[in-house]
Amino acid sequence: MRYLTAGESHGPQLTTIIEGVPAGLYITEEDINFELARRQKGHGRGRRMQIEKDQAKIMSGVRHARTLGSPIALVVENNDWKHWTKIMGAAPITEDEEKEMKRQISRPRPGHADLNGAIKYNHRDMRNVLERSSARETTVRVAAGAVAKKILSELGIKVAGHVLQIGAVKAEKTEYTSIEDLQRVTEESPVRCYDEEAGKKMMAAIDEAKANGDSIGGIVEVIVEGMPVGVGSYVHYDRKLDSKLAAAVLSINAFKGVEFGIGFEAAGRNGSEVHDEIIWDEEKGYTRATNRLGGLEGGMTTGMPIVVRGVMKPIPTLYKPLKSVDIETKEPFSASIERSDSCAVPAASVVAEAAVAWEIANAVVEQFGLDQIDRIRENVENMRKLSREF
Amino acid sequence: MRYLTAGESHGPQLTTIIEGVPAGLYITEEDINFELARRQKGHGRGRRMQIEKDQAKIMSGVRHARTLGSPIALVVENNDWKHWTKIMGAAPITEDEEKEMKRQISRPRPGHADLNGAIKYNHRDMRNVLERSSARETTVRVAAGAVAKKILSELGIKVAGHVLQIGAVKAEKTEYTSIEDLQRVTEESPVRCYDEEAGKKMMAAIDEAKANGDSIGGIVEVIVEGMPVGVGSYVHYDRKLDSKLAAAVLSINAFKGVEFGIGFEAAGRNGSEVHDEIIWDEEKGYTRATNRLGGLEGGMTTGMPIVVRGVMKPIPTLYKPLKSVDIETKEPFSASIERSDSCAVPAASVVAEAAVAWEIANAVVEQFGLDQIDRIRENVENMRKLSREF
Amino acid sequence: MRYLTAGESHGPQLTTIIEGVPAGLYITEEDINFELARRQKGHGRGRRMQIEKDQAKIMSGVRHARTLGSPIALVVENNDWKHWTKIMGAAPITEDEEKEMKRQISRPRPGHADLNGAIKYNHRDMRNVLERSSARETTVRVAAGAVAKKILSELGIKVAGHVLQIGAVKAEKTEYTSIEDLQRVTEESPVRCYDEEAGKKMMAAIDEAKANGDSIGGIVEVIVEGMPVGVGSYVHYDRKLDSKLAAAVLSINAFKGVEFGIGFEAAGRNGSEVHDEIIWDEEKGYTRATNRLGGLEGGMTTGMPIVVRGVMKPIPTLYKPLKSVDIETKEPFSASIERSDSCAVPAASVVAEAAVAWEIANAVVEQFGLDQIDRIRENVENMRKLSREF
Amino acid sequence: MRYLTAGESHGPQLTTIIEGVPAGLYITEEDINFELARRQKGHGRGRRMQIEKDQAKIMSGVRHARTLGSPIALVVENNDWKHWTKIMGAAPITEDEEKEMKRQISRPRPGHADLNGAIKYNHRDMRNVLERSSARETTVRVAAGAVAKKILSELGIKVAGHVLQIGAVKAEKTEYTSIEDLQRVTEESPVRCYDEEAGKKMMAAIDEAKANGDSIGGIVEVIVEGMPVGVGSYVHYDRKLDSKLAAAVLSINAFKGVEFGIGFEAAGRNGSEVHDEIIWDEEKGYTRATNRLGGLEGGMTTGMPIVVRGVMKPIPTLYKPLKSVDIETKEPFSASIERSDSCAVPAASVVAEAAVAWEIANAVVEQFGLDQIDRIRENVENMRKLSREF
Repeated sequence: MRYLTAGESHGPQLTTIIEGVPAGLYITEEDINFELARRQKGHGRGRRMQIEKDQAKIMSGVRHARTLGSPIALVVENNDWKHWTKIMGAAPITEDEEKEMKRQISRPRPGHADLNGAIKYNHRDMRNVLERSSARETTVRVAAGAVAKKILSELGIKVAGHVLQIGAVKAEKTEYTSIEDLQRVTEESPVRCYDEEAGKKMMAAIDEAKANGDSIGGIVEVIVEGMPVGVGSYVHYDRKLDSKLAAAVLSINAFKGVEFGIGFEAAGRNGSEVHDEIIWDEEKGYTRATNRLGGLEGGMTTGMPIVVRGVMKPIPTLYKPLKSVDIETKEPFSASIERSDSCAVPAASVVAEAAVAWEIANAVVEQFGLDQIDRIRENVENMRKLSREF
Repeated sequence: MRYLTAGESHGPQLTTIIEGVPAGLYITEEDINFELARRQKGHGRGRRMQIEKDQAKIMSGVRHARTLGSPIALVVENNDWKHWTKIMGAAPITEDEEKEMKRQISRPRPGHADLNGAIKYNHRDMRNVLERSSARETTVRVAAGAVAKKILSELGIKVAGHVLQIGAVKAEKTEYTSIEDLQRVTEESPVRCYDEEAGKKMMAAIDEAKANGDSIGGIVEVIVEGMPVGVGSYVHYDRKLDSKLAAAVLSINAFKGVEFGIGFEAAGRNGSEVHDEIIWDEEKGYTRATNRLGGLEGGMTTGMPIVVRGVMKPIPTLYKPLKSVDIETKEPFSASIERSDSCAVPAASVVAEAAVAWEIANAVVEQFGLDQIDRIRENVENMRKLSREF
Repeated sequence: MRYLTAGESHGPQLTTIIEGVPAGLYITEEDINFELARRQKGHGRGRRMQIEKDQAKIMSGVRHARTLGSPIALVVENNDWKHWTKIMGAAPITEDEEKEMKRQISRPRPGHADLNGAIKYNHRDMRNVLERSSARETTVRVAAGAVAKKILSELGIKVAGHVLQIGAVKAEKTEYTSIEDLQRVTEESPVRCYDEEAGKKMMAAIDEAKANGDSIGGIVEVIVEGMPVGVGSYVHYDRKLDSKLAAAVLSINAFKGVEFGIGFEAAGRNGSEVHDEIIWDEEKGYTRATNRLGGLEGGMTTGMPIVVRGVMKPIPTLYKPLKSVDIETKEPFSASIERSDSCAVPAASVVAEAAVAWEIANAVVEQFGLDQIDRIRENVENMRKLSREF
Repeated sequence: MRYLTAGESHGPQLTTIIEGVPAGLYITEEDINFELARRQKGHGRGRRMQIEKDQAKIMSGVRHARTLGSPIALVVENNDWKHWTKIMGAAPITEDEEKEMKRQISRPRPGHADLNGAIKYNHRDMRNVLERSSARETTVRVAAGAVAKKILSELGIKVAGHVLQIGAVKAEKTEYTSIEDLQRVTEESPVRCYDEEAGKKMMAAIDEAKANGDSIGGIVEVIVEGMPVGVGSYVHYDRKLDSKLAAAVLSINAFKGVEFGIGFEAAGRNGSEVHDEIIWDEEKGYTRATNRLGGLEGGMTTGMPIVVRGVMKPIPTLYKPLKSVDIETKEPFSASIERSDSCAVPAASVVAEAAVAWEIANAVVEQFGLDQIDRIRENVENMRKLSREF
């Protein structure tokens, strides 16, 4: 499966085309809009989220709530577009219009794509860069992730993202009883944190940062349960599933690191405290006594829950600006403030969920036959049976 | 550019074919064998490294030390093969021979690909898995990385890997004066650590682990200097260079996490302490006051050094074995010991260097014209000039 | 560069996302709609072409008629959609609605994707197949081709498609004086044929087929002029440009063959009557005395015009139907008639032009630097200069 | 699945790495060498075929004649290498050695990659081009095809290539009784032609061309039987199987056209004489009354035999040379003669067989689950059963 996304933050719409989705999958616009709404929630989100009430429309590939096997086009219109038709229109404009064009940007914001993108594509007006590099694009990545989640749910595979840390505040209570429990509790938390106490402190930290004209980042974790054994492969470096998941997480705006299982803690531990002992019983077949390796060994799933964490840096659009340089005058100045969130970590956990769900669904569909959801389900069931009886 | 690798750990040879290398690049077998030798060094390496003195032979794509533009095949013969011709031969064997076949493995080692690979490919003898999942394969990844480094060196781009942590021992002194200084000092260190004092403690920790029949992991860092601005792109999620580098690092055996710049530390810091202020001067053009984001913003290079770190878990082959299950008898047992290193972190820093060098070279060749090294050099120079004058 | 298309023939819209287009290219909706109108012209087109007046809207990636470097989304709405909202809607329907659903198809038409697609994706109602397999999809392939043509025109490369044969009628007079002459004359011909006399006979043949309730095919040719030398490569089988062009032509609905230069005639000729002698002069550098190999040697451009021809079978939707089988009753019947053209060859020459233009533009952008149209133009100019002085 | 090839015509060896082959496939070096020997047979082959007795060695990915699932490396050594070590060695040479280097080529041969490749990669000595562009490379494409054929034979799919035309001589008697009959008869024919009478005339034509210092081409056809329905797809232009097969055939040295079923003849026929009526019976399910579309409709297999033909131009290396230009002196001259065949069409039918087998095997493995040959067989059987009962 593959997908492309398109759309500028203040253009008419965001578009994605998802190609290769098996036929026969039940899916509705509600399934997708549920996920888009989740992305828009979260304490610390900026004013833009009040303007946009994201709604995806299915423009192809689905008929009477069943996928046809043909490419699915999803469109999310930008309500804000009506204020930007002149500034962001595709049609040619006169030289005068160009000179009087409002909201031109010649002052790059530190931490953004502004300056690098302007040099790369030779854009004097950095609005040409930020309109696409904006995290607004993740809206249709979440839409594509919603389709992926539907595929996984048909195969008994569940994906749940949640927040472990915001600023200096870390969740202490993280032992959830089941993935459903994790999903239920975090869905009600304004910061998507399983630990209610920590959640309150996180909100306070967000408010404090906002008051200081600053922004804060955090750490999100995505859990995937119900995986058959052996998805991904050790046979070639670019078939390893953890490698693909790492690329997916690092492709999300503002993410600067990713780790699996105990992750960076593995450096300081002895081998005997890192690896998961193999156990077997008649009913479940092979499992692991612990899950320190986060469900992945040799680039393949072990059948244990996949545990992947990503770190999101604070958003670079600060009310307390940093020093930058005006590319026309070469004069130093303090970076301009574009309306934005002071903390997008809760939303980022929804985006991370979508990015992980997509890679997992893609690896499963690729491995268990492309065309038809029922046949894929059958093949996945066979693999589970085979693993139990191996 | 693309490359495939092939070869079992005790098969006749390791092979790689590297396709798409620009023509006119000066390269010799010595350039490649220099890197292979670096990979074999390192305190804590197992007995296998005494058996194999890896030497790569160039079998195609290079004539009189100049690349032709056609695919480069590199071969590294396994000296050990002469003891394994029966066990690992490609030719058919009789049923009797199969029954008496030595070194069959029905006892999966925790933390390895053994069990998942056996179930995935229906291998009763797990030697069929471990022979390929073994880190021996990284030999030809380092060979491919050597070709990549030659391309980069022609373009004024330098890559240097080193060790920051082994077990609980962390390098304190890490402020190197230049990348050449970093390369020189770490090349002489048995654990490739820039901090000599910490290096000694690291060796002690390795010896201690070995004495306890255990193994320890660590953290490696790769620095890339001399990058032009704007390599990689924000325009689509899978064009982001940090996403590609994350996949490369996580594709290395035993790596469980990767981070850029200040990485996971970004979670706890305010935005104003994370982003790098933009400065400009006549001579250098735009640079950053700091490099907390590790040379990457919006998925593109800023021109500052790329800083990427990866965590390697302890090697799962322990003299102090963990509990596992015999797949034939389903009886629990303690995992078998396959000759191995007690610490491979120093070697892993060479492999990480190669994997990072490959992604960078690939992104640069893709972006600045494919065919001929001189024309690529010219285009990269133009980009540097353009960035300065932007 | 890459693009995905989406959209059912009677769905709300056709969509394409084109990713990787260099920044700075001047393009307007008129440029694209000019090509869509060309596709809708042509003697022998069915009633559908009166219903649809295809208009593409640029939804992203272009600002004030300049490409941004970010993905371009193009949308073509189906006027006919308003009559199909119930039959083709994405929303779930009740069981009753499903039973009473009109225009269900259980009778596959010979020569179409109907039956194979139904079995592949387990569709009982073959409307689920034909809505996507319909040539309506080529509308957005022509839109993507329009973007490709703009890139090529900025680089001095011209693409012209025309019709050589319809049914038994072959163009005799094919020696055009220049590619502009070819474009001008064929644009005015209702069957896009350079030979006016043959054109009249072709129209008569189309009318005759229609009267007999039949349909006829033909042969189209695409010429590409202005290519620099050495685009594509011999170094690996999948880098050969003629291989990529062949795939592009055979990916067009109803095409069953492709040939370059003298093509299949080469089988019967001696080597000395097939190859093009190499000549040189101060001003033009190396050219060929003849162009029997159609501008391609060793998988690379020679600098001479690329000449590629494709054969389009008659459209399989006949008023004079062929025998088929009802998949529910298994009873033989005569294939159903879906409103269609009796001859689509003139339109197919526009689609072939677009498919060839896309592969050429992609190969050129890939080879001469990705990001910015001015730098690509410079690199292509350098290559032309270098070839002259080689 | 994917594969890369490497190797110069007079280098030490040809190498291929085939990655993604399912585990558990029975294969031996004999299986591969049988195909290499077939490629070396054929009336009209040059002296080189007496020098080389191609033998492939399996260097990885197969153990005791079973594929492991890991990459397969195959090596074919060039016996001729011992005479070319100085001219083609990878090691650096002194300036003197460079001046005295024998067999330098500054005179490009018309119809070859020589001149275009030299300009593209800036090679003054065109030996750097011809060593890789030579058809010698197809040796390892046939080796990769042999692996593909083994996969297909396990799935009840058969591939047979044969010669339909050499020079002006066309096979008249082409109605073979079964694919086994076709394979048996053509294997014994020195020109791989099913029509014995025509075969004799073909040999006479080859001898005549050789006597005149010329070379002749021809047309080969590949038949594939036993395909399940629905391999390939209509849902996106680049999933169409005929498009992939067209690319494969046009990627073979000297091929200038490809067609399916009645191919170019479809242009002159009415629709009712082109499409295959659909019939059904209890035992076989859906088949076609005729097979004019060569087993492919809507980019997918119909279950009928796939029929694909390719035209090979005469080899451009003529004893009766054509005019060319010396790139150093710019003086016209007659092209140099490199030892070669006067007709390679019989061998090309073996190469076409391999290239088609590879694309088919790849499409089948991709569609029916990647990992293990027994599971793929099961999935293909299920599809056949499902098609019968649809």
